[in-house]
Amino acid sequence: MSEYRIRAEQLQDFAATVLKRAGVPAADAEDAADVLVWANRRGVDTHGVRNLKTHYADKVSDGSIKGTPEFRIEYETPISARVDGDNGLGLVAGCWGMRLAMKKAREVGIGMVAMRNSNHFGAAGYYPAMALAEDLIGVGLTGMLWAQGNQIGVVPTFGARAMLSTNPIAIGFPAQDEPDFLLDMATSTTPMNRVVMRQELGQPIPEGWALDAEGRSTTDPSMAKMLLPLGGTREHGSHKGYGLAVMVETLCALLSGGWGALTEPLPNGLDHDQTRDAHFFAAVRVDLFRPLDEFKQGMDAMIRALRATPRQPDQDRVYVAGEIEHHTERKRLREGIPLPANVVADLWELSRRFDVTLSLEKR
Amino acid sequence: MSEYRIRAEQLQDFAATVLKRAGVPAADAEDAADVLVWANRRGVDTHGVRNLKTHYADKVSDGSIKGTPEFRIEYETPISARVDGDNGLGLVAGCWGMRLAMKKAREVGIGMVAMRNSNHFGAAGYYPAMALAEDLIGVGLTGMLWAQGNQIGVVPTFGARAMLSTNPIAIGFPAQDEPDFLLDMATSTTPMNRVVMRQELGQPIPEGWALDAEGRSTTDPSMAKMLLPLGGTREHGSHKGYGLAVMVETLCALLSGGWGALTEPLPNGLDHDQTRDAHFFAAVRVDLFRPLDEFKQGMDAMIRALRATPRQPDQDRVYVAGEIEHHTERKRLREGIPLPANVVADLWELSRRFDVTLSLEKR
Repeated sequence: MSEYRIRAEQLQDFAATVLKRAGVPAADAEDAADVLVWANRRGVDTHGVRNLKTHYADKVSDGSIKGTPEFRIEYETPISARVDGDNGLGLVAGCWGMRLAMKKAREVGIGMVAMRNSNHFGAAGYYPAMALAEDLIGVGLTGMLWAQGNQIGVVPTFGARAMLSTNPIAIGFPAQDEPDFLLDMATSTTPMNRVVMRQELGQPIPEGWALDAEGRSTTDPSMAKMLLPLGGTREHGSHKGYGLAVMVETLCALLSGGWGALTEPLPNGLDHDQTRDAHFFAAVRVDLFRPLDEFKQGMDAMIRALRATPRQPDQDRVYVAGEIEHHTERKRLREGIPLPANVVADLWELSRRFDVTLSLEKR
Repeated sequence: MSEYRIRAEQLQDFAATVLKRAGVPAADAEDAADVLVWANRRGVDTHGVRNLKTHYADKVSDGSIKGTPEFRIEYETPISARVDGDNGLGLVAGCWGMRLAMKKAREVGIGMVAMRNSNHFGAAGYYPAMALAEDLIGVGLTGMLWAQGNQIGVVPTFGARAMLSTNPIAIGFPAQDEPDFLLDMATSTTPMNRVVMRQELGQPIPEGWALDAEGRSTTDPSMAKMLLPLGGTREHGSHKGYGLAVMVETLCALLSGGWGALTEPLPNGLDHDQTRDAHFFAAVRVDLFRPLDEFKQGMDAMIRALRATPRQPDQDRVYVAGEIEHHTERKRLREGIPLPANVVADLWELSRRFDVTLSLEKR
């Protein structure tokens, strides 16, 4: 399936140059490219350069996303900020917001930033990973809830209309010698692209992944229109995944000014809504509680205890969040990043449009 | 099944008096009783007075839990504290810890308290509900991870030994006219008592709830020994429930000093472990971000939009976290709290042992 591969640094240069030529300032383009290539390095290809054209470059080119936004702090305290993302690239807004949270954390121990009026920010895990690089605890969330529902997305438990996006939770804790703990999870059972993949392979999907257009459970990926919250069914705890999705929405969109005074009322009298994607970032210093080195040694001890769990008969071993991606990153930094044909086609198109060299290796 | 009922205030008096006579100071006994009766008022009977005898009164009486602990702040900043719970009642320690977090939040906007060396603290949702009463955002977590596993508990994904407790997440956001959003969820698919309930009814359990003693999936409740993380199977996202459980453990036990310098190394060289139950409490002022009234109006708008979601064909309606419990509380404050026979038997035993009047109504 992956006929081509590319060195991570070459992919970074390519993506950054494309965005620069689309009108994004140089430093912002480097940030945005790093978010995408980080996902590819770690095997999270759903959030990598496969989206460079459709989610980002095309939208900056056609003006539906601003290439040169002015992020504006609308309200601020030493430990918090509410920010207007000015309809900028979410990848750029996310880096800007997380840096603001980290600056506050360095100064006073914690920083929390709620941002509205942004766009798709890539892999949520990138933002806590920024904090981990400075041994801070990091949190990155992104939330969307449509007041009148949406064609695609996640249904509330018992609901038959998509109201929520996959509203992911990402959180990271620094370890010492072990890979850092880094959880990055959609609050739905599965992302839509795994449904599409099953359809392409001609395979059914399990019960608990999706509903058809009428809100009935389906195992036919071609009929699957709406995703179910983590848990799948009420009996398996879907109210928990749904509750987490609303928690994410509240921290992102409600704290940043959505669903009220800062947004327009809806035509049908349904009160308000949110403006575009909303995010929440937090960074926390471990030494608010205990010395950093002791904490990191404790993380190593805990991670090793989990890894030593006796395994189920048909399984190789037990993992800890972020570990598989950590090993994938080491491998891909050595061997290059594999790219499937459809992604390569998009990248060639960008290469021609913006006159940027694309150096691929045939596998 | 529920042959008896009791007024909430009478149950509160009874539970508080039992604990006082068991050796708990008066104010602490009132706190502990309120945590339990709050759960009963809201229909969370698994965490109510059914545990008064076995989890709390018996253990204070036999000295395995201290009735008069001295909670000690081991380290503190204006926004954080690490606390030694001194092997006290978790119900009392929890109220003390949450009040400390709320005091910090009132003073500087946020308060975070990590506490080790505590015990079972009842329903996690009680602690964010304390914050909601003052229009603060509230968080309550409790975590346990046994370095060498345990007979009962939750397995990591792919694991065949219980390593984690059900490590719940509770978080609350204040609303205006609607019931406050209050999510209180175990990070396992289901609690053990629902497995036991199915066994008593002679019913099978669904795939994805539990494993047998050898780590094989089972639908026979009598064979079920270990619980699965939320998601159930890897295909349904159990690595997410497992990841959330480890997140809870880290915020509770790692920040409070577990798995390192403050705990003893294990005999088999497996580094360290944690001391007893660990908790994490946080309170956050909404006006760190936006005016409280606007936020609460926004919460109402969001809650109403969710409630207006078109429902699945076989369902009555869509709910929001905390709503069902809110309505149960109104009903039980009117009609009294139903108590099943096995709970009544425990309460009678306590009534005799501590010479406390128990006023039940026969239904």
